[in-house]
Amino acid sequence: MSKTMRGYAMLHIGATGWVEKPVPECGPRDAILKPLVLAPCTTDVHTVWDGALGERHNMVLGHECCAEVVEVGALVRDFKVGDKVVVPAVTPDWSSPEAQAGLSSHSGGTLNGWKYSNTEDGVFSEYFACNDADGNLARVPDGVSLEETIMLSDMVPPGFSCVELADVQFGDTVLVIGVGPVGLMAVAASMLRGAARVIAVGSRPATLAAAKNYGASDVIDYKVGSIEEQVMELTNGRGVDRVCICGGDGDTFTAAVRSIKPGGKIGSVIAMNMNDTITIPSADWGFGMANKQIVGGAMLGGRLRLEKLGALLSSGRLDVSPLITHRFKGWERVEECLTLAHNKPDDLIKSVVTL
Amino acid sequence: MSKTMRGYAMLHIGATGWVEKPVPECGPRDAILKPLVLAPCTTDVHTVWDGALGERHNMVLGHECCAEVVEVGALVRDFKVGDKVVVPAVTPDWSSPEAQAGLSSHSGGTLNGWKYSNTEDGVFSEYFACNDADGNLARVPDGVSLEETIMLSDMVPPGFSCVELADVQFGDTVLVIGVGPVGLMAVAASMLRGAARVIAVGSRPATLAAAKNYGASDVIDYKVGSIEEQVMELTNGRGVDRVCICGGDGDTFTAAVRSIKPGGKIGSVIAMNMNDTITIPSADWGFGMANKQIVGGAMLGGRLRLEKLGALLSSGRLDVSPLITHRFKGWERVEECLTLAHNKPDDLIKSVVTL
Amino acid sequence: MSKTMRGYAMLHIGATGWVEKPVPECGPRDAILKPLVLAPCTTDVHTVWDGALGERHNMVLGHECCAEVVEVGALVRDFKVGDKVVVPAVTPDWSSPEAQAGLSSHSGGTLNGWKYSNTEDGVFSEYFACNDADGNLARVPDGVSLEETIMLSDMVPPGFSCVELADVQFGDTVLVIGVGPVGLMAVAASMLRGAARVIAVGSRPATLAAAKNYGASDVIDYKVGSIEEQVMELTNGRGVDRVCICGGDGDTFTAAVRSIKPGGKIGSVIAMNMNDTITIPSADWGFGMANKQIVGGAMLGGRLRLEKLGALLSSGRLDVSPLITHRFKGWERVEECLTLAHNKPDDLIKSVVTL
Amino acid sequence: MSKTMRGYAMLHIGATGWVEKPVPECGPRDAILKPLVLAPCTTDVHTVWDGALGERHNMVLGHECCAEVVEVGALVRDFKVGDKVVVPAVTPDWSSPEAQAGLSSHSGGTLNGWKYSNTEDGVFSEYFACNDADGNLARVPDGVSLEETIMLSDMVPPGFSCVELADVQFGDTVLVIGVGPVGLMAVAASMLRGAARVIAVGSRPATLAAAKNYGASDVIDYKVGSIEEQVMELTNGRGVDRVCICGGDGDTFTAAVRSIKPGGKIGSVIAMNMNDTITIPSADWGFGMANKQIVGGAMLGGRLRLEKLGALLSSGRLDVSPLITHRFKGWERVEECLTLAHNKPDDLIKSVVTL
Repeated sequence: MSKTMRGYAMLHIGATGWVEKPVPECGPRDAILKPLVLAPCTTDVHTVWDGALGERHNMVLGHECCAEVVEVGALVRDFKVGDKVVVPAVTPDWSSPEAQAGLSSHSGGTLNGWKYSNTEDGVFSEYFACNDADGNLARVPDGVSLEETIMLSDMVPPGFSCVELADVQFGDTVLVIGVGPVGLMAVAASMLRGAARVIAVGSRPATLAAAKNYGASDVIDYKVGSIEEQVMELTNGRGVDRVCICGGDGDTFTAAVRSIKPGGKIGSVIAMNMNDTITIPSADWGFGMANKQIVGGAMLGGRLRLEKLGALLSSGRLDVSPLITHRFKGWERVEECLTLAHNKPDDLIKSVVTL
Repeated sequence: MSKTMRGYAMLHIGATGWVEKPVPECGPRDAILKPLVLAPCTTDVHTVWDGALGERHNMVLGHECCAEVVEVGALVRDFKVGDKVVVPAVTPDWSSPEAQAGLSSHSGGTLNGWKYSNTEDGVFSEYFACNDADGNLARVPDGVSLEETIMLSDMVPPGFSCVELADVQFGDTVLVIGVGPVGLMAVAASMLRGAARVIAVGSRPATLAAAKNYGASDVIDYKVGSIEEQVMELTNGRGVDRVCICGGDGDTFTAAVRSIKPGGKIGSVIAMNMNDTITIPSADWGFGMANKQIVGGAMLGGRLRLEKLGALLSSGRLDVSPLITHRFKGWERVEECLTLAHNKPDDLIKSVVTL
Repeated sequence: MSKTMRGYAMLHIGATGWVEKPVPECGPRDAILKPLVLAPCTTDVHTVWDGALGERHNMVLGHECCAEVVEVGALVRDFKVGDKVVVPAVTPDWSSPEAQAGLSSHSGGTLNGWKYSNTEDGVFSEYFACNDADGNLARVPDGVSLEETIMLSDMVPPGFSCVELADVQFGDTVLVIGVGPVGLMAVAASMLRGAARVIAVGSRPATLAAAKNYGASDVIDYKVGSIEEQVMELTNGRGVDRVCICGGDGDTFTAAVRSIKPGGKIGSVIAMNMNDTITIPSADWGFGMANKQIVGGAMLGGRLRLEKLGALLSSGRLDVSPLITHRFKGWERVEECLTLAHNKPDDLIKSVVTL
Repeated sequence: MSKTMRGYAMLHIGATGWVEKPVPECGPRDAILKPLVLAPCTTDVHTVWDGALGERHNMVLGHECCAEVVEVGALVRDFKVGDKVVVPAVTPDWSSPEAQAGLSSHSGGTLNGWKYSNTEDGVFSEYFACNDADGNLARVPDGVSLEETIMLSDMVPPGFSCVELADVQFGDTVLVIGVGPVGLMAVAASMLRGAARVIAVGSRPATLAAAKNYGASDVIDYKVGSIEEQVMELTNGRGVDRVCICGGDGDTFTAAVRSIKPGGKIGSVIAMNMNDTITIPSADWGFGMANKQIVGGAMLGGRLRLEKLGALLSSGRLDVSPLITHRFKGWERVEECLTLAHNKPDDLIKSVVTL
């Protein structure tokens, strides 16, 4: 292995480009990985062009990847050179007190389980390291292609976590706000969790059509009127049992609170802007006494979660192929693929780069 | 029984007085009750002088009462004339779909389990009816005085519900904001639920001293500095595991979110003003991903809850007598007692009127 | 309405026949119902021919019914004469302390929420009463036939309750033991709850084929070899995450404990014989420390549950029509239909009688 | 540090003695520890004299220890040479899929989180290693003596875990069967979790007296009559809400099932003998439908748990000093202390050896 490598990086807020970096060294519990398939994420776009995480210099981007193991540390037991794996966006420190409390995404502090292209270099480079390989890498599920498998890095998990935060039960009516790839996975997960009815909110025809294909019984265009009014019309004024927020901003929580029954649960997995604010009018929240629960959380990462979700792919219970609308080939197309995510054309759901 | 009776009522926003009303008729599942001990509530004050519920005309006030059964309907099986009972502030319709879903306080709609001095006449009258007597009346716990028992109507339940909403676990550090009688019960309930440390927030010396007596390890005066800064100083920057909001307004939620660790749970039982608003800055909420859960709920009412909480009184596990700082005797003192709640002198925690 | 009516009854253990009974009177909260579709249940068979409930004399059988409302009590608000409804097998007393604790099936004592053909006359008569009509009747779901709707009385609810008791999570492998109609509903519910893989255990080809149609990935014939050995072979020695027991006897729990991973949950909804016993060898239960949870429970009944499950039928998420293998027409066929359930031919899943 | 050391070991079933072993080497994540206070456990007795774990040769005994850190591996961040720590009996592999699923005690397989004096040498030697020092060692709580702190290794955690398994709620009546040191901690934990009433079952006067001191309202001597009959008499035939099994054998589960209400939860933390069996008569279990939940589990181990429980000691909420009835000084008394545990005199609760 050569000593240096190239990576596609955020140079500073608003600018990206190729950088040269040393190949990472392999600690005793690490694996060194060579990407096979990459995917850019809306979060990369926010990081670079919105400065969502604050300033970063020459930080390699990317946190969605299928890869081949090229080196493992002395303490790694379950993976060996040549194994094909999927890497979760969130790679927790499993011994931390937060992980011991069931909050692995916050191992070492709020959101610190998310390392790639946040607190460390990301995966858009010739090689990258994974901390705690045994705890954080997952095998490619049997019979699933790499471009489908990469959806396990960061698209499937938050959609499914959101449905768990909203605690969907048999027969529920669920409102899913935002139908980008994460929201579509929340639609699919709501159906897999026993919802009787899913109302999906978006605006682009391609994503609303995809939501229907994933099982949404109704779709709402938020540009046509307020979400809550459309929900109340669809539910004869009763509101929904659960809300999954997978797109939007602080104001979306107001719409959610207005759309939900007393006792309902609102789960959110959106990354809010630093200066955004949630505002909840008392009257819509039952003067503070309506038992409407609100929680915004990080996706669960790590190996077990990816293997459990991977089992849904390999058993055919979840089909992620409709998410992938744009395909690229080769390292030289990474920039183009990221630009596409930045421009977000009407027909884009998710793009991948096969190397 | 005569056909009419006197009751102390809200005449309209800002005014109270005695009114004459027909004695209520007893439906097949009802009981007719004659008050033995009454207590005014801060909620009565908000209802009358802040117009918290909107306008009401000649509505009998009060929802805290120990009483004697004077009549029971044909379908009532467990109570008979002469029984001494405690009446919960919240008297749900147990057959409703909301109650079947575990949300009895919202039977028939948001907060509609709370009827007395809200959607129906209250208990400050010579007689009043209780809907579903078998489901909503509770016996006076063995060996407990009536003035202690009345604390089960509306002081003990929300404090305990708040601790359940915040989901206190063994060894937790809990922040209890507001140490009026409900907040003091949240301090006691946190201790009874296994908290290692309770930080109580108030301003009046009498209530802060009471909080210490109920087990708070630290007290914070919110007039001295921001709650979150004092919390962070007391916890070496780590924050607390749980927050119980038992006093304050929309801004209190901001302090709570800032004071709590990722993954922490915030329970609230305050009645917010109609025009109040909760505002949560994104950054304090982990950009929406810190898994900080927020829920504002109504106390649980009904018979079982009161009998379970009553068992804590009769077994001596919970001593509510320190709550009662002012005692009155006779119907003619009801007005004075309510005025006291309105004026809220420094040494007041809770007052009762024995009839 | 005439004063007497005919009903098909258990005369005593081992014998059935028509009896004449007074038409029930309508209490203030009751509804009087006239059956439209009936279905016999294996429980009726156990009651009559195994004496599962002990001796009963001239007790009208049956607890599965769609019906028309012919009279309502003065306190009933939501139903009126002529409404078509489905009646749950379990019709709780919602005000009882047990129901207030979330255990409505045990209102008034163990299993006392189950009244029809247990502690009271059942539904196989020209008229029958339903206690707490507002709380216990459910409307026929939109667009669903009566013969499908009747599956909500007692086939769909225990299957779904079993999956809730076993607490199925995304990506789980679930073992469903017993694939009569309740077990088939547990297969369907496991899929609707996000299982990646369901292993179904039975012996009759027709039911094993139905299990596959409902989504089971593997089927096991318990007559071919021990359940646990077949499970371990199918799971490479790892065992399953959850077990739903929907058929069998005390020994089935031993197989379940042997088939499940540490930390797994075993839910059961079977009615065991009076003299049956559960036996769990310590070693299979991790010497008492494997965190393998065991719970046998009653189905949830009442209105809300049926309306939530009914929403799965009307939305097309759950298709119960494959359950119905035999259809009869008219009161005079009730006996034949019950005899069929007693004889249990190989091709029987569930039979119904339309009146 | 010398290359060899002495340890007190199980030579084979039925025999103990001193052995010489190499000083353990320190892996990159390990700590090497020198004992300061030791305590023998009933489990050591079962291991040696009952052969509870099967045969073992020259395995160092002991899994309860306060110690000083004498060496740390290169990857250890939170502990350094000279730190005083308490070591949990259960030291999980936190990256394992089981731990990621919240079942850390079963990391790597059923009960494999318990390593000391089970699958590896124990702590009764001059030095021993701790795997994953950052994840598994806990600091000595502020202001707590070492002999009290050692109760956190293996006496406090299972008692508290048992109460969590039984899911004790405010106002519950709890039956604690077995009042050795673990059972006494279950009594204390039930009180700390909000039980209104605890009924404790034992036979030795010293432990029954201790149970009363820890808050039990009633004590039952199981030698006087059946547990269930005594419970029913004390509860007017209603039974208890929860049962904690901290002593007994397979038959104890029968008594528990007979003593508990429908919907009740039974938690157990006893280590059953290899040939023991749980037997539950159907009728006592509501014919399989009473929703009486049974779970036997391992204590939670690791750092966070011990620090949370330690906070209860340092805050004075839990006083473990009454557990310690016998004190020894020096390595040469280890044998005597273990023999005492074997003989179990009437006045013994727990003994410790300070080095």
